[in-house]
Amino acid sequence: MPAEIPKRVEIFDTTLRDGSQAEGLSLTVMDKLRVAEQLDRLGVLYVEGGWPGANPKDQEFFERAAAGELLLADARLVAFGATRKAGGRAETDPVMADLLAAGTGYVCLVAKSSPWHITETLRTTTAEALDMVADSVTFLRNNGKVVIVDAEHYFDGFFELGSFWRDFLRVVAESGAMPVLCDTNGGMLPQQVERAVGEAREVVPGGLGAHFHNDSGCAVANSIAAVLRGVDHVQGCVNGYGERTGNADLTAVIADLSLKLGIETIPAERMALLTAVSRHIAEIVNRAPDPHQPFVGTSAFAHKAGIHTSAIARAPRAYSHVDPEAVGNSNRFVLSEMSGRASVALKAEQMGLRLTNEEIGYVVDRLKELEHAGYHFEVADGSLELLMRAATGWKQSFFRLESHRVVTDLREDGGVVTEARIKLFVGDERIMEVAEGNGPVHALDAALRKALGPVHPELSRIHLTDFKVRVLESAAGTAAITRVLIDSTDGDRTWTTIGVSENIIEASWEALSDSIVYGLLHAGAVGR
Amino acid sequence: MPAEIPKRVEIFDTTLRDGSQAEGLSLTVMDKLRVAEQLDRLGVLYVEGGWPGANPKDQEFFERAAAGELLLADARLVAFGATRKAGGRAETDPVMADLLAAGTGYVCLVAKSSPWHITETLRTTTAEALDMVADSVTFLRNNGKVVIVDAEHYFDGFFELGSFWRDFLRVVAESGAMPVLCDTNGGMLPQQVERAVGEAREVVPGGLGAHFHNDSGCAVANSIAAVLRGVDHVQGCVNGYGERTGNADLTAVIADLSLKLGIETIPAERMALLTAVSRHIAEIVNRAPDPHQPFVGTSAFAHKAGIHTSAIARAPRAYSHVDPEAVGNSNRFVLSEMSGRASVALKAEQMGLRLTNEEIGYVVDRLKELEHAGYHFEVADGSLELLMRAATGWKQSFFRLESHRVVTDLREDGGVVTEARIKLFVGDERIMEVAEGNGPVHALDAALRKALGPVHPELSRIHLTDFKVRVLESAAGTAAITRVLIDSTDGDRTWTTIGVSENIIEASWEALSDSIVYGLLHAGAVGR
Repeated sequence: MPAEIPKRVEIFDTTLRDGSQAEGLSLTVMDKLRVAEQLDRLGVLYVEGGWPGANPKDQEFFERAAAGELLLADARLVAFGATRKAGGRAETDPVMADLLAAGTGYVCLVAKSSPWHITETLRTTTAEALDMVADSVTFLRNNGKVVIVDAEHYFDGFFELGSFWRDFLRVVAESGAMPVLCDTNGGMLPQQVERAVGEAREVVPGGLGAHFHNDSGCAVANSIAAVLRGVDHVQGCVNGYGERTGNADLTAVIADLSLKLGIETIPAERMALLTAVSRHIAEIVNRAPDPHQPFVGTSAFAHKAGIHTSAIARAPRAYSHVDPEAVGNSNRFVLSEMSGRASVALKAEQMGLRLTNEEIGYVVDRLKELEHAGYHFEVADGSLELLMRAATGWKQSFFRLESHRVVTDLREDGGVVTEARIKLFVGDERIMEVAEGNGPVHALDAALRKALGPVHPELSRIHLTDFKVRVLESAAGTAAITRVLIDSTDGDRTWTTIGVSENIIEASWEALSDSIVYGLLHAGAVGR
Repeated sequence: MPAEIPKRVEIFDTTLRDGSQAEGLSLTVMDKLRVAEQLDRLGVLYVEGGWPGANPKDQEFFERAAAGELLLADARLVAFGATRKAGGRAETDPVMADLLAAGTGYVCLVAKSSPWHITETLRTTTAEALDMVADSVTFLRNNGKVVIVDAEHYFDGFFELGSFWRDFLRVVAESGAMPVLCDTNGGMLPQQVERAVGEAREVVPGGLGAHFHNDSGCAVANSIAAVLRGVDHVQGCVNGYGERTGNADLTAVIADLSLKLGIETIPAERMALLTAVSRHIAEIVNRAPDPHQPFVGTSAFAHKAGIHTSAIARAPRAYSHVDPEAVGNSNRFVLSEMSGRASVALKAEQMGLRLTNEEIGYVVDRLKELEHAGYHFEVADGSLELLMRAATGWKQSFFRLESHRVVTDLREDGGVVTEARIKLFVGDERIMEVAEGNGPVHALDAALRKALGPVHPELSRIHLTDFKVRVLESAAGTAAITRVLIDSTDGDRTWTTIGVSENIIEASWEALSDSIVYGLLHAGAVGR
């Protein structure tokens, strides 16, 4: 039977160490400092900062953190390293020296706990491996550090013959460190975890941790299974970054443990920061947030099929496993070609528009047609509103485009310059302007603003904040089309507009033009 | 204690029905036919095609499938629908008529199995709900159909007070259909699944299915837990597409059940198709494959950290939970700024290049510098090879660019045209050419080919196959930079090249130029 289930589980984030092994992830020292701040804000107990001495970046991180550039309110900063070398002494080992120099109160050591890995990849004896752990822990503790030991390949070792895993855990615990059971290969299933953790729990009297990778697709479930067998310290990464398939996603682990099992993880009053911190970290590490990520994804509480939308409108909790606000996320009703007239009517109402039945029918048909061509109005509320207004016969009167030309020169001296020339009418007045930019969109935006600025000074409050491009290939392999999304803000509201075309410049113009029209419309501007 | 674990589990894919509820997913009828073929190729037993009558696309899908446009070797095509309406009769229900008209041998009916949902969202009595199921199953079976019943909200119902779930399962089984336990809200944890499935297993004598969504991050683990409690039919979607956080990812479910638990799912000899089919389906539905997806992702067996790379080179199985070839994937050693000299040397060797120690040092430094600027050579083997060759003092001599100009006109009549003018030297000869294209890259590519074609006829075998654009925003919020990736092929080999710049045209040129140089180099062309 399971050990006692802990009331509280320590959350240990390793985004800055193990997570940064993720393919495609590359963090500057400034990025790392900012991620650490976000983790502290969320209330994560341990923040593993990196391996001092292993590379200049991690070295600099700990130096700047120690110099006061990182002020953590609650979190404990951890330095990571290996045990002393086989046959060496902790006192003279360079890794030990680097760990002391990092100046953190907490140290996490990695040590192989599987006999196969010790003999085959480390090329030493199991007896020496145990001495390496004991010596290193003792040395660090004598120097005032609290020590955690990541038992690398614990699960592989457990399922090998023999009981070395037991000796290993005893040595770690008796040396005064906390052992963390690591599924280094990430291949465990929850049922195996239950067995291997359950037996470890009987050997280790005090704190016991677990660390999972997602290679079997079960990292979150494995973390939960480990806790239900008595583990009270879970390692992973916010958003599940990490080598191969990633580490256990701490956002899901935290939400599942606290909201579903009533186990304390981060402070309860900070649970509603989960979505914001997840997205903020994604932004810092420059990874597009996964819209389908459990709890925190933008689609996590989005409902699309007509059958569901109507039900949710009647009983909000009928189709949500938790209250999205508990994790700082929100319900979202999504328009798409699959949606019927009812969804369009609902959306129009939310936008403050009143559409007749005929107009709703027109919008439904037009959406089908445009989504077939590659548009996705689900993510482009700004353009969707303009489309709905157009259904009522509305037509923007801020300007009428005559033509534009965008020229990019790569010059003989290697310099690159883009200029846009635009011709348009404001009322009856014909205006032409030219502007430079560091790319086609920037140049077009500058030219359009130059042309409209004198008539619409409110444009100065409207800014483009993001620009996304996706190349869509039709499954039939015919011409590729480009979809451009532009995010804009006027300081109060934010909106997204869309353009689709075979030509990226035209797609960009479409999204840009919608963005400016939407902004002027809501600034109360009047065309002429 | 658990029920007997089944030796064989039926795999039921619902990508074309439930999966297509995913936000941002929009499939044409042709897409749907092609996805069904891929599922059949993989050996999935059931392919749910859609809801005939619910929308014109699904209607057309079944019509074209019945007309012979879809030839499934082994898979069973399933039509989805609801039970008869409350208070109505199956014989006159339009949904029943649509299901018969779909012409499939198999039908999957959805029916609410939670009293709360029946009374609150369906607004009928539990007694009528049971009659709706029994009548509909009987009617369809009398018309020769094999019937599966998706017990919607089964788990929510199980954990409500009362035992209606038991009545529901009995009625389904006694009517002659197979019940499928659905976690419609997706919030279950494996430990809850074990309990709720275990009790269902005692009520249902024959086949029993389960269907999970990933809202708690546990859909794969929940599917496994259900099988270990006696479920022998699992529903989900290849790649885990679906509403909100997605359905259970069948690629992971299949691999875990078969490779780790020895349970038959798809035919064993097709397991190695898993990666190819997963990526093929991603391509058809126009979703970028998730590189971190368990088993089938391009990063799933990629190893980056120096500590691991050297170990894997010595003992290939030390860091892989399964043999990647078993699922048609492969080990991959990845270069990055975190990699040291050893990885660069290994990569150079794989490319057939011999670098001196000094040259390796240069490459390591240059990689750091360029990755800092936004390059990612992990995904751009073509550009990486050129960079490594450059370290040896090699310089491409196919052409020397003088300048180029790209002009895009949006004309007064609404027409758009892009032309590129290029000036370059081939040997001592100065060449200038102009060409049109449906966008800047296309036009530049056309102009470059016009200029080089007469000297390098082997260019006609080299084609661009894909073009990706990503806008990278530095965390500090300064100028956005654009990263362009171009995939190319000469029929035998394929390669990827990269360009990074504030200006999208320059980034495109860089990737394009590398692509052509790489292609000519490997076509054995000689510059002059």
